[in-house]
Amino acid sequence: MSSAVTSAAPTKTLDLGPARALSCRECGHQIPLAAEFACPECFGPLEVAYDFAGVTRERIEAGPKSIWRYASLLPVPTNVTEHPNTEPGLTRLVRAEKLGKALGIKRLWLKDDTGNPTHSFKDRVVAVALAAARELGFTVLACPSTGNLANAVAAAAARAGWRSVVLIPKSLEQAKIQMTAVYGGTLIAVDGNYDDVNRLATELAAEEEDWAFVNVNVRPYYAEGSKTLGYEVAEQLGWRLPGQVVIPVASGSQLTKVDKAFGELGKLGLVEPTPYRVFGAQATGCSPVATAFAEGTDVVRPVRPDTIARSLAIGNPADGPYVLDTVRRTNGAVADVSDAEVVDAIQLLARTEGIFAETAGGVTVACARKLVESGQLDPDADTVLLITGDGLKTLDAVAGHVGPTATVSTSTAEVRRALSG
Amino acid sequence: MSSAVTSAAPTKTLDLGPARALSCRECGHQIPLAAEFACPECFGPLEVAYDFAGVTRERIEAGPKSIWRYASLLPVPTNVTEHPNTEPGLTRLVRAEKLGKALGIKRLWLKDDTGNPTHSFKDRVVAVALAAARELGFTVLACPSTGNLANAVAAAAARAGWRSVVLIPKSLEQAKIQMTAVYGGTLIAVDGNYDDVNRLATELAAEEEDWAFVNVNVRPYYAEGSKTLGYEVAEQLGWRLPGQVVIPVASGSQLTKVDKAFGELGKLGLVEPTPYRVFGAQATGCSPVATAFAEGTDVVRPVRPDTIARSLAIGNPADGPYVLDTVRRTNGAVADVSDAEVVDAIQLLARTEGIFAETAGGVTVACARKLVESGQLDPDADTVLLITGDGLKTLDAVAGHVGPTATVSTSTAEVRRALSG
Repeated sequence: MSSAVTSAAPTKTLDLGPARALSCRECGHQIPLAAEFACPECFGPLEVAYDFAGVTRERIEAGPKSIWRYASLLPVPTNVTEHPNTEPGLTRLVRAEKLGKALGIKRLWLKDDTGNPTHSFKDRVVAVALAAARELGFTVLACPSTGNLANAVAAAAARAGWRSVVLIPKSLEQAKIQMTAVYGGTLIAVDGNYDDVNRLATELAAEEEDWAFVNVNVRPYYAEGSKTLGYEVAEQLGWRLPGQVVIPVASGSQLTKVDKAFGELGKLGLVEPTPYRVFGAQATGCSPVATAFAEGTDVVRPVRPDTIARSLAIGNPADGPYVLDTVRRTNGAVADVSDAEVVDAIQLLARTEGIFAETAGGVTVACARKLVESGQLDPDADTVLLITGDGLKTLDAVAGHVGPTATVSTSTAEVRRALSG
Repeated sequence: MSSAVTSAAPTKTLDLGPARALSCRECGHQIPLAAEFACPECFGPLEVAYDFAGVTRERIEAGPKSIWRYASLLPVPTNVTEHPNTEPGLTRLVRAEKLGKALGIKRLWLKDDTGNPTHSFKDRVVAVALAAARELGFTVLACPSTGNLANAVAAAAARAGWRSVVLIPKSLEQAKIQMTAVYGGTLIAVDGNYDDVNRLATELAAEEEDWAFVNVNVRPYYAEGSKTLGYEVAEQLGWRLPGQVVIPVASGSQLTKVDKAFGELGKLGLVEPTPYRVFGAQATGCSPVATAFAEGTDVVRPVRPDTIARSLAIGNPADGPYVLDTVRRTNGAVADVSDAEVVDAIQLLARTEGIFAETAGGVTVACARKLVESGQLDPDADTVLLITGDGLKTLDAVAGHVGPTATVSTSTAEVRRALSG
């Protein structure tokens, strides 16, 4: 028994629902549930292992209209809905006939996560992290971030009545700073780039024992929140798995967790365990996983990001190797697209389906197009694209590309002239 | 029989669900369902009259997770879900204990309409307008707007595959212009103020027979979409009416329609018809209805708006007199608050409940506070505040008021110093 097991031993009986242990993804070593993220044996990443019981479609459908309907599949306390949290999830799954036609995909759906409380999928992972962190004894919610995560952490902490500490590079856009600061937590601007901020967060996580850095020391719990995207897609399709799903890749965690969710649903008999293919989407300016996929290697070489898709700009993605495992195992692929293609795809999505996505959504749509053209995505299979964030947060991506059709004086004749011109 | 009845007679049998006729709010005269908005007898405003049948809680609960679960209570075709639309609604109703404590209200809930597709309640009214307009034979969706409505119309038309024509004052903020333009419809910037744009829209509505101006020639249908806010509040409270509701007042339509919804639910036996009180909220810089309420008159005198709450800045509110009727009948009131109070309230809401509202939400929260302090709002009654739009669209309201707590170098010691400072 390693010393980590002893030090992590809970002083009370933890209620983290069906979660049973933390298990190393590399060596399989297991430790009791605790605020740990690295295997004491091999330093591999830890993830949550479960004993599921009594999970049925009927109980899920009778549950809250949020991710908490899946509480019996998440590492959260049984009484999770009794504490204030942000209740994200159960966002729209939209049948997208016009976009499907434009991309050459016959049956296409969009999972529109812009409807979450702070308008990105980060509300899902933060809500799960907050619920687990409360049970693990933390009292402060923290993160390093450049945008969506900062918004989600500050909002969830405010709602819960917790203190938040959010670390950002001081050069961040004013809009993102303001939307984080309005929630009233502690917002620390750091004179450095995101890598500096991230390193600082890791140091602080080791020093401040009351602070749950959602994406550092409680990352195993946090990451499980992305499973809810997979559960919702399956439930909203009428309790079945799609044939194909295209997912943006930043750290890669989301892609692996949607795959985990599909696998769990099949094993639990909640859906037929039909085959599905998982595809990853990256911006060419930060495409280490797509590069490794194309080269047929298992090694993801870090890159220095240079893309407008800043929410995906992680040059050294922690879950990159697991993304490669998943897409290869399911006969998928990882594609990448240029910033110009991203801007085009944001507009295509808005014009065909009325959904205004951030740059990550543009990456996903543009990669889907490319994967159809290359023959890797099957145009006849039921296909779902994950739209994980909101265009209002990355307005600069479309500025200069869209604007009024015409400017006229107050005359109906001028309006008609503008319309026919 | 007036000539309007003849000219409006449909050439086919219209399916607008339970809608039976258009009825004049002033004289009670009725005409067949058509694209009319003014009474042919007295020029009073027309609204939809219904014959409801077979509406039960069970059927509603088994319906779509959007406003279309209430299709049997709306003027939309029976097959409304078969055509692409934006599926707004069923947004969160959040129990707000911390904000309640701050305001002195024991049991408080927030209806958070920032979760709608374009992040305001306008998606509700536009979705209903689009569905009715399709049945009425229109092919173009249009509006004059300064913001939220422009976003909602352009997005819904894109999703439906319709052309949109949106008229805006050319001085509108770039963010609002871009978020409308990205959906790809026709966006006409007019060299004039909103009153000029509105007059131009009314002229065009009379000339262009294929254009459904959602808030002009199909306004009776459009306005009914706000009823869904009332239905959802009641369903989400467990099929009961709140004791009090506070609603922002622009044209005043939303307030009267929530009242209409509560009345319908009671008459249909879907809830106990318990007494409720309706309160209106305005910004002092545009408070013609609050002024009339305070003066005890029925006459709403137009004003020239001067407030940061631009989405409420209608100086001559069409439904002002009906707002006065409703609040007086239900023993409510109309309050108004300064722009400084609005900015404070936006921050209070964000800091207590993690919800970032636009200025209209700040008006509602600040008015609730004022109404408690004046003794008009009962601190012991179940109270609901409608949060109808998103803070990301009015970032300028909080700019200069919020920002980083501290700026530090990359040292944990400096972070700790900043935290203790």
